[in-house]
Amino acid sequence: MPESTFILGVDPGTAITGFGVIESHSQGQFLKMVDSGFIVTDKKLPPGERLKVIFEGLMAVIEKVVPQEMAVEELFFNKNSKTALAVGEARGIVLLCAALHQLPVYEYTPLEVKQSVVGYGRATKGQIIYMVRQILNIEEEISPDDVADALAVAICHAFHSGMRENAGLS
Amino acid sequence: MPESTFILGVDPGTAITGFGVIESHSQGQFLKMVDSGFIVTDKKLPPGERLKVIFEGLMAVIEKVVPQEMAVEELFFNKNSKTALAVGEARGIVLLCAALHQLPVYEYTPLEVKQSVVGYGRATKGQIIYMVRQILNIEEEISPDDVADALAVAICHAFHSGMRENAGLS
Repeated sequence: MPESTFILGVDPGTAITGFGVIESHSQGQFLKMVDSGFIVTDKKLPPGERLKVIFEGLMAVIEKVVPQEMAVEELFFNKNSKTALAVGEARGIVLLCAALHQLPVYEYTPLEVKQSVVGYGRATKGQIIYMVRQILNIEEEISPDDVADALAVAICHAFHSGMRENAGLS
Repeated sequence: MPESTFILGVDPGTAITGFGVIESHSQGQFLKMVDSGFIVTDKKLPPGERLKVIFEGLMAVIEKVVPQEMAVEELFFNKNSKTALAVGEARGIVLLCAALHQLPVYEYTPLEVKQSVVGYGRATKGQIIYMVRQILNIEEEISPDDVADALAVAICHAFHSGMRENAGLS
């Protein structure tokens, strides 16, 4: 068990894929942002070319930062299966990048992310961003939302790992 | 315009991804099967690992056969957005493989595929398989269905390309 873990959180999307890397010390008690950003794809490009931009962008992030773990939101869609298909395509690329680098992937529901970061499951987007900035000591605005979402799922994973370790589960 | 074109048809799926490569001569008038098969993934593997199996399998097919074009079905889902998400993940990998090899991708609806291959849009799975075997002069059974579907969308693309060429559109 290393003392410090680099966690890459990702919020996959065909248009914008947000990412955030945090360093977790002492079982999630001390968190620090290492890197964050987003990959934008031109909607005029064919679908495969857009996915290639995401693939190459995220592979470059992983090769630069060398995280030990990846965290992503587990997604549910009630209605729009067309959106689900498009998000699935981007998500598939993100999971592939992890597998190609032997990164274990941890998934959390939106509810779990909100509960971890804000403290309750019905938190608004603004509350999440506020708490992400508090937890990571970020003074600047975080934008777009996809970056905050990526950092939030990374934080959620850091807290859950810490709890598992304290409970002797890992 | 090359006299003969190699077309790779793909039917993406998380569990089974079917593929079929056909050679199209004289604007789709003469078709021949070059290769076909399927990539199976172990459902006990994590999602990313399964996508990696699809990625590596399809990259190997493309590197071996060196097709000039890819054809896939354009998908619509009415209800099951969970299925859409999973199929989207596999489909994203397939589109990425095409983009990484600069293969143009052509998409056809299930209706267009049935109309091209069988002659009408309400064709059954059995009729599609029967016609795929007739068109490509395949004596053996084609199985699983994913392989027949992959060959069918490749045939559909060959016919459509032929029509476009005859109409002076390409």
